[in-house]
Amino acid sequence: MNENDITVNLASTSKIDSVDFENLIFGTVFTDHMLICDYKQGVWEKPVIKPYEPFLIDPSAKVFHYGQAIFEGMKAYKDEHDDVWLFRPDQNFERFNKSAVRLAMPEVPESVFMDGLKKLLQIEKAWVKTGKGNSLYIRPFMIATGPGVVAAPANFYRFMIILSPAKSYYSGEVKVIIAEHYSRAANGGIGAAKAAGNYSAQFYPTKLANEMGYQQIIWTDDATHTKLEEAGTMNVFFRINDTLYTAPTSERILDGVTRKSLIDMAKREGINVEVRSVLVDELIQAAEDGSLKEIFGAGTAAVVNPIVGFSYKEKYYELPKLENPIALQLKEKLNNIQYKLAEDTFGWTVKV
Amino acid sequence: MNENDITVNLASTSKIDSVDFENLIFGTVFTDHMLICDYKQGVWEKPVIKPYEPFLIDPSAKVFHYGQAIFEGMKAYKDEHDDVWLFRPDQNFERFNKSAVRLAMPEVPESVFMDGLKKLLQIEKAWVKTGKGNSLYIRPFMIATGPGVVAAPANFYRFMIILSPAKSYYSGEVKVIIAEHYSRAANGGIGAAKAAGNYSAQFYPTKLANEMGYQQIIWTDDATHTKLEEAGTMNVFFRINDTLYTAPTSERILDGVTRKSLIDMAKREGINVEVRSVLVDELIQAAEDGSLKEIFGAGTAAVVNPIVGFSYKEKYYELPKLENPIALQLKEKLNNIQYKLAEDTFGWTVKV
Repeated sequence: MNENDITVNLASTSKIDSVDFENLIFGTVFTDHMLICDYKQGVWEKPVIKPYEPFLIDPSAKVFHYGQAIFEGMKAYKDEHDDVWLFRPDQNFERFNKSAVRLAMPEVPESVFMDGLKKLLQIEKAWVKTGKGNSLYIRPFMIATGPGVVAAPANFYRFMIILSPAKSYYSGEVKVIIAEHYSRAANGGIGAAKAAGNYSAQFYPTKLANEMGYQQIIWTDDATHTKLEEAGTMNVFFRINDTLYTAPTSERILDGVTRKSLIDMAKREGINVEVRSVLVDELIQAAEDGSLKEIFGAGTAAVVNPIVGFSYKEKYYELPKLENPIALQLKEKLNNIQYKLAEDTFGWTVKV
Repeated sequence: MNENDITVNLASTSKIDSVDFENLIFGTVFTDHMLICDYKQGVWEKPVIKPYEPFLIDPSAKVFHYGQAIFEGMKAYKDEHDDVWLFRPDQNFERFNKSAVRLAMPEVPESVFMDGLKKLLQIEKAWVKTGKGNSLYIRPFMIATGPGVVAAPANFYRFMIILSPAKSYYSGEVKVIIAEHYSRAANGGIGAAKAAGNYSAQFYPTKLANEMGYQQIIWTDDATHTKLEEAGTMNVFFRINDTLYTAPTSERILDGVTRKSLIDMAKREGINVEVRSVLVDELIQAAEDGSLKEIFGAGTAAVVNPIVGFSYKEKYYELPKLENPIALQLKEKLNNIQYKLAEDTFGWTVKV
């Protein structure tokens, strides 16, 4: 398929002039158009780009009853020459189809996902603003639209891409609590998939954490609660002395694009990186003896999210305030690649 | 609230005459009307009963992205006097709101859930057919309709009830495989909630089991795979000699209405029932020494689903073919109560 195989129905007017790009709330404003591609009993139909608007769906659609829904999170950046760039989109595309397999959904062809995304971004180019911190958040997702209240995979699916302009934000000081009871993923479960159901499962425990004054939860393994696995909806890194640690990906841990990019960048910078599970006991020990220097989350939305302290068994451990933390060094370097302000020697950026 | 607080817009014509009630496929045919009740920023609006039809929803609705979606499964039965009965609807209502809390969704008032259901059933009374085996499957569900691609609970929700006429069906001989790798629930997860996301997580492992010739999976605990927990989307019972065993409810195991009703009925029949985890090793031992007599699933849709054999570590264990299995005795007794053919000494049935 090439771009000519996409039907395009443009909006008669753009709402872009009504958007306050200086005061965006993440994930709440959408661009003028969206991409839709339907899958009917074994065949992907022709993708359509059309005005962003609500769509009709049957009350018995399986997405509502059995949660067949997956998504990706990506960003587009604009450089100083007004060109739009994607960051490692191949990784998101591959992961999307891995999620699809795990949820017994059809895989989306590259021509639909990639060519569709590029065509949509060309149309919405004005929504990607120049300047560091500005980006266009990309949300590809797929839902089971097929009807029927019987617990089995659907016959009909809808793949969509919607776009939301974003500004980098300072989320305030992030304090976290280490999970002692609740969990985000089972062994042999769907924790490694970007499945919608994984996220709502976190809302209630996160609400409880919020009420106690913590913004996020550091998730531990569900069987023993001794291994540190993710932070909120992000992968998590720990710096003990001058070594960075992050858990290996597994059935319980998402293979984050930011996570693996940070690992590669840190290694090239000569930083010692160990990909292994950090135990809660180790973390407490390191916090107490002063060797724990940093904790930070890594994900597409915030890129890097430094954590100022954590709570465990009702004791709060404050992290040191460093002059030049590795978290912010890596964030700066990654952002510079994403915004084409530094040479991309990794070959991660793709021009739209 | 009473029934007068429900807006009713009746369909101009009924499609009931076009339905072949002798050849229903479970969960595929819906009645003329549905109930909708919207929740907007803290307030439940007035419920509406209207023709069953697709509805409009925003592409960024959180149900699509973060899986905030819960449901219940219930049935209505018609007795010989043309009266319609529900079976323990209070249990479904309570469990629905427990699921809501776990998914950080608003609880639905009894006036909306119960009065709404009863009013809807009065309107759809003709869809509940007399005769054992006929029933009207009831699907109350709630989805997050609030927009936004940020992983946090929505501000807008929709509660709905849809109805699907059902016939008891013979599903063929059910062979199962015991899970050695995949799992349905985490400790500290949402396995005890009727959350949509729990079901799609099972589709892929079930597809693999189907390909090997097994209709369902017996789920084990995710940490050790040594404890037998559920069968497919049902609770599971094991009969060893003359004792029935079923796992205790937990964070990983759904508090099934059929499960607890069978426990109560079996006890009253003088059958020894032990609510405790059965170990895989115990099951193999019992299968080998001949003390394993029956395995059956218990759930609303099939009530009781006898299993003819199971596979574990590539070995298949056939169950004995009994003259008068406890599974079918209990099913018959429970059905008789549900269809008002036997006295309901438990007080489980509620007239609509």
